[in-house]
Amino acid sequence: MNYQYWHRKVEIMPRPELEVFQLERLQALVDYALRTSFYAPKLRAAGIKGSDDIKSLDDLKRIPFTTKHDLREGFPYGFLSIPKEEVIRLHASSGTTGAPTTIYFNRDDITRWTGYVARSIYGTGCNHTDVFQNMISYGLFTGGMGFHAGGEEIGMLVIPSGSGNTTRQVRLMQDFGTTVVHATPSFLLHVESIMRAEGVSRDSIKLKRAFAGAEPYSEDTRRRIEELLQIDVYNSYGLSEMNGPGVAFECQCKNGLHLWEDGYIAEIINPDTLEPVPDGETGELVMTILCRETTPILRYRTRDLTGFYTEPCPCGRTHRRLRRITGRSDDMLIVNGVNIFPSQIEEVIMAMKDVGNNYLIEIEKDGVMDKLTVKTEIGPDIFMDDSRPLNALKERIRKTIQASITINPRVELHESGSLPVSEGKAKRVYDKRPR
Amino acid sequence: MNYQYWHRKVEIMPRPELEVFQLERLQALVDYALRTSFYAPKLRAAGIKGSDDIKSLDDLKRIPFTTKHDLREGFPYGFLSIPKEEVIRLHASSGTTGAPTTIYFNRDDITRWTGYVARSIYGTGCNHTDVFQNMISYGLFTGGMGFHAGGEEIGMLVIPSGSGNTTRQVRLMQDFGTTVVHATPSFLLHVESIMRAEGVSRDSIKLKRAFAGAEPYSEDTRRRIEELLQIDVYNSYGLSEMNGPGVAFECQCKNGLHLWEDGYIAEIINPDTLEPVPDGETGELVMTILCRETTPILRYRTRDLTGFYTEPCPCGRTHRRLRRITGRSDDMLIVNGVNIFPSQIEEVIMAMKDVGNNYLIEIEKDGVMDKLTVKTEIGPDIFMDDSRPLNALKERIRKTIQASITINPRVELHESGSLPVSEGKAKRVYDKRPR
Ligand SMILES: [Zn+2]
Ligand SMILES: [Zn+2]
Repeated sequence: MNYQYWHRKVEIMPRPELEVFQLERLQALVDYALRTSFYAPKLRAAGIKGSDDIKSLDDLKRIPFTTKHDLREGFPYGFLSIPKEEVIRLHASSGTTGAPTTIYFNRDDITRWTGYVARSIYGTGCNHTDVFQNMISYGLFTGGMGFHAGGEEIGMLVIPSGSGNTTRQVRLMQDFGTTVVHATPSFLLHVESIMRAEGVSRDSIKLKRAFAGAEPYSEDTRRRIEELLQIDVYNSYGLSEMNGPGVAFECQCKNGLHLWEDGYIAEIINPDTLEPVPDGETGELVMTILCRETTPILRYRTRDLTGFYTEPCPCGRTHRRLRRITGRSDDMLIVNGVNIFPSQIEEVIMAMKDVGNNYLIEIEKDGVMDKLTVKTEIGPDIFMDDSRPLNALKERIRKTIQASITINPRVELHESGSLPVSEGKAKRVYDKRPR
Repeated sequence: MNYQYWHRKVEIMPRPELEVFQLERLQALVDYALRTSFYAPKLRAAGIKGSDDIKSLDDLKRIPFTTKHDLREGFPYGFLSIPKEEVIRLHASSGTTGAPTTIYFNRDDITRWTGYVARSIYGTGCNHTDVFQNMISYGLFTGGMGFHAGGEEIGMLVIPSGSGNTTRQVRLMQDFGTTVVHATPSFLLHVESIMRAEGVSRDSIKLKRAFAGAEPYSEDTRRRIEELLQIDVYNSYGLSEMNGPGVAFECQCKNGLHLWEDGYIAEIINPDTLEPVPDGETGELVMTILCRETTPILRYRTRDLTGFYTEPCPCGRTHRRLRRITGRSDDMLIVNGVNIFPSQIEEVIMAMKDVGNNYLIEIEKDGVMDKLTVKTEIGPDIFMDDSRPLNALKERIRKTIQASITINPRVELHESGSLPVSEGKAKRVYDKRPR
């Protein structure tokens, strides 16, 4: 395969050189952090009064972790390192509870961010001849404008179609010969369902690739999307605290996400002991952003669980590869005392041919016990009329899930297309237990 | 007053020089137009085979008009002047009927467009210390991304809040000290109603200015918004065929919209005879875009009715000022044979103190006659309990509307906040007559 690099020099930079680069940026970043009301006292307490006190990358460990709670406490300006007048944009997470998390950018921050997204997109084999339909929400959410800018940077024709309106999305793909889309995995599955329901032939669209992110999904889901739509699906990883998209992205090898280490320092820790885990093991991802002056965030506990691949990637990039994010520590459900991740259930469902694209998980209280129900759709070619094969399918799903999570779920089969669909981030888990 | 100019030289350029500038750009534009499948045969038929055939601005008149219908017929690539691979973005109108209107941009087109929006915003007195909340839809619609880019260009802190979610919008204004917003006039009125309903004090927000556009509104509506929110409201005019925002904008004199004549050539024609109207008279605005290579559009019939002020503006800008757009020729309603514009009814309503912010117009068939009903809300300080003053108010509204449009309407009063609200472009007219 012929790999293409957007920032060739830095993407294949030998690691010792990359680490020198990281150290220089970290030193600069610490100076910015010292100008924020949140970090100034914390860094001084750790004996860090200026960039001179950072002599090696190991000195990062002297800095305490930053949590989501800290970001909320610092709202609105605790993490701002420059005068407000020099800021040109803010993005904010919707913040399910409490104050939103707000990130500020100056012009250089945006330029750098755009560069990382462009590098990510280009690395999947796209170029200026592609037509890129960005099927994700624009505005305060970083996914829309971040991917948009990256796509324009490499000269693709960008269609800012935004989220939702599936029928129109399909129409746009047909009208403009869209070759690549960005969406949540659940929306991609929904697009495919709508195409099938409306009799849109695969030949009428020119789609070749999709970037899928913003919610965790399993390898089986990826394969299902790839097979149904006959495209290549690339994993995208980002979070608004670290700019949004462009943090880590799969290359054409589709085997782990290169984390751009000239822009970020990543650590993997044991979320209980807060100690680093051995190379290659799974733990909580902790991130320091090196490519943003305006809102420095150091050692941020992402709550995302992952680990690094240890072997080098055939593509030649030296930036380490993250394993697929299987879930957030927040996503973990405790059902009758057992820790389970929704992704474990998704894996089972997406690997089964007779099961449709949509599913949801419900947990209720049944006396003192928790009751777990998994609702799935049956495949579009199966009919609800004959109950014998359906009962067999139900039993097969139940057994396979139980084998995976040790808990015996109740399984409900629903007709294809009958479960609720969210056009943005999918809501899969309904935890109805009283708090 | 101290006027500030973003592109000083061109904004106050003497008109003879400005016209030389226009001619040069028009010549270049004709060469681009000759590369499109729509214009090539039309221009050749008019004897225009290259820029040499445009010797003066008068030669523009040899080119036939372009209509909305032409744009739809040319869908998708009939107006594209460069190879598709060189396009980096498209915007599209939603297209209530038939194919959407699509406009393509290359990088230079976007840069120029951003410049016109920046110039417009800066001319209202904003600068890099402002906090700009862009309360309008992002994505395919040009209003969101167009204003966003212009705001960033002059270094304001831009909050890409998008349309809708009024309570959150108010919260963002409070949290970040928003000084200027962009919205439809109806949404601004809605924001004020919500603030009042939720007991948000004026002191808790720092708002100073609003840019209002995307739907026609009367001078009385402007005054009402200005008084209720204690801000300056500036008229914005744009249309997606001419890039979107940044076509014409009010300066700090708030008396007509400077149409940026280095980027556009405007003509005012009689929509029936298609002849130019005398200087200063009202007619249909016809526009030629000089600042976009990728999708040239010549002599586009906007269907917007307006005219130019003939006196120079005190701000010193030499670009002529459009009068407020009172309506589109499409908006005109024929009720029992009489031509009326919804704006005439709006003017009456917004000038009355006891009437609320929201209204709608309904037309039904009553036998062979048309029946016109105007539904308005009463002001928030009036109660529905006492019918005598309400009947008097109703009668006053009825008489004043009749005096304005000669038709006798039925008037319905509704409680404050009870008429339907659209969070984007307001839908005011419900024409229920069979077609
Ligand atoms: Zn690779
Ligand atoms: Zn002026």
